Amino acid sequence: MIGIFDSGLGGLTVVKKFQEILSQYQLLYFGDTARTPYGNRGEDVIKKYAEEDAQILIKRGAQIIVVACNSASAIAYEYLRTKFSVPIFEVVTPAAEKAVAMTRNKKIGVIGTRATVNSGIYEKLLTKDNRNIRVFQNSAPLLVPLVEEGWLNKPETKMILKKYLLPLKTRQIDTLIMACTHYPFLRQMIQVKIGQRVKLVDPAEEVVLKVKQYLEQNPTIDKKLPRNDHHQFLVSDLTSRGQNLASQWLGHQVKLEKINV
Amino acid sequence: MIGIFDSGLGGLTVVKKFQEILSQYQLLYFGDTARTPYGNRGEDVIKKYAEEDAQILIKRGAQIIVVACNSASAIAYEYLRTKFSVPIFEVVTPAAEKAVAMTRNKKIGVIGTRATVNSGIYEKLLTKDNRNIRVFQNSAPLLVPLVEEGWLNKPETKMILKKYLLPLKTRQIDTLIMACTHYPFLRQMIQVKIGQRVKLVDPAEEVVLKVKQYLEQNPTIDKKLPRNDHHQFLVSDLTSRGQNLASQWLGHQVKLEKINV
Repeated sequence: MIGIFDSGLGGLTVVKKFQEILSQYQLLYFGDTARTPYGNRGEDVIKKYAEEDAQILIKRGAQIIVVACNSASAIAYEYLRTKFSVPIFEVVTPAAEKAVAMTRNKKIGVIGTRATVNSGIYEKLLTKDNRNIRVFQNSAPLLVPLVEEGWLNKPETKMILKKYLLPLKTRQIDTLIMACTHYPFLRQMIQVKIGQRVKLVDPAEEVVLKVKQYLEQNPTIDKKLPRNDHHQFLVSDLTSRGQNLASQWLGHQVKLEKINV
Repeated sequence: MIGIFDSGLGGLTVVKKFQEILSQYQLLYFGDTARTPYGNRGEDVIKKYAEEDAQILIKRGAQIIVVACNSASAIAYEYLRTKFSVPIFEVVTPAAEKAVAMTRNKKIGVIGTRATVNSGIYEKLLTKDNRNIRVFQNSAPLLVPLVEEGWLNKPETKMILKKYLLPLKTRQIDTLIMACTHYPFLRQMIQVKIGQRVKLVDPAEEVVLKVKQYLEQNPTIDKKLPRNDHHQFLVSDLTSRGQNLASQWLGHQVKLEKINV
């Protein structure tokens, strides 16, 4: 199975992309809803949680792991690689590669959680082979709660988004990485506020394309992955609100299953 | 020691009230910053976390426990009483008693987290001996992240607060319980938006007065409590941001100590 974990339900955006791009594979999702969000937490805690999340997926049969959460990808990926032998994919690298391929004026913007932005990982990856690229980042911590409240089209959300994007707009970026699973829900509003000419990068899409490429290049691994639609959606906390949110975000009815962690 | 726990750092408002009203006693604080916030979580998870939080305090010598978090008070108090034999105080009952004593028109408003409001505990306590009291509640989930971002005086916060308070204002409440540790930071703005005639109840203050009364009535317990200012502030996750926030909220420098839970 392809295992996907996230700090909460936001990672369902990655599931959605799998269902669009690689719909044949059976998915196993784990959302750590009892400890969400990760984005303001310290590095040690994020590493510990990410390790436990991956462990849950592997115990239940995941053959490859996708870290859907940008904060966990940014902070814990290297650590996870030392802990597990299964292939692990994270969302930061493919998003950075895409942004580098897309930018013309070499000015790339990043919005993300505090943990993601402070990790400096996007800056590092974006400039690694491209010293002339300039990176402008802003953490946008209120966007996650706004999206989780469903305030997708409210004037307050517009004002707050504008505040977060203004410093990037001023620097005339031509590419913006939406470096948190929740932000694509605000895609339209982000596009309006940052300007129509700025290209948006959604890490969820890029990581699925990366997995696709990997499986094409590794047929022995690909052959072992079960192909069916008996997807499982595990969570560490289950409320009726979370259940509704999950179905709404995935675009179809989904049954979350609570497990004890 | 007097042990105080909270889902995060918001409970420092209770510490502050102790330092104003009962400053002689040594305090032991635990903030579960690795799993904050509790306000949107399910009942089972809140009970489990509250039990672990109380256990941490008791293991380190707490002789009485104060549940600073409204969500944990609302959901887990009865459960905690079945688990521990030390005296336990929660913030809901004293706040409800104060509101009942203060209201003239018998219309009491409550704003709180989703968990607190949905628990129905305030409604139950406020109307228990007063069937003619009417209770109007609204959950205000965005206020916690706004306060944690330090957006205490921003136009966006004003707009959002207005939205949350309007349904209570329309019902012409004369008393409002600020049923979350974070809300007193917005006290001034809340007062302006709800109207100057509405009396505000801060559960943090009421619970400390309750402890005071208890200790006066129970001198044998009171005598055993150490009196000194070697307070300890434990957290499950420590970031430099949390450290700064804690000092700012408490109004003086405080050293947080990270423990593994």
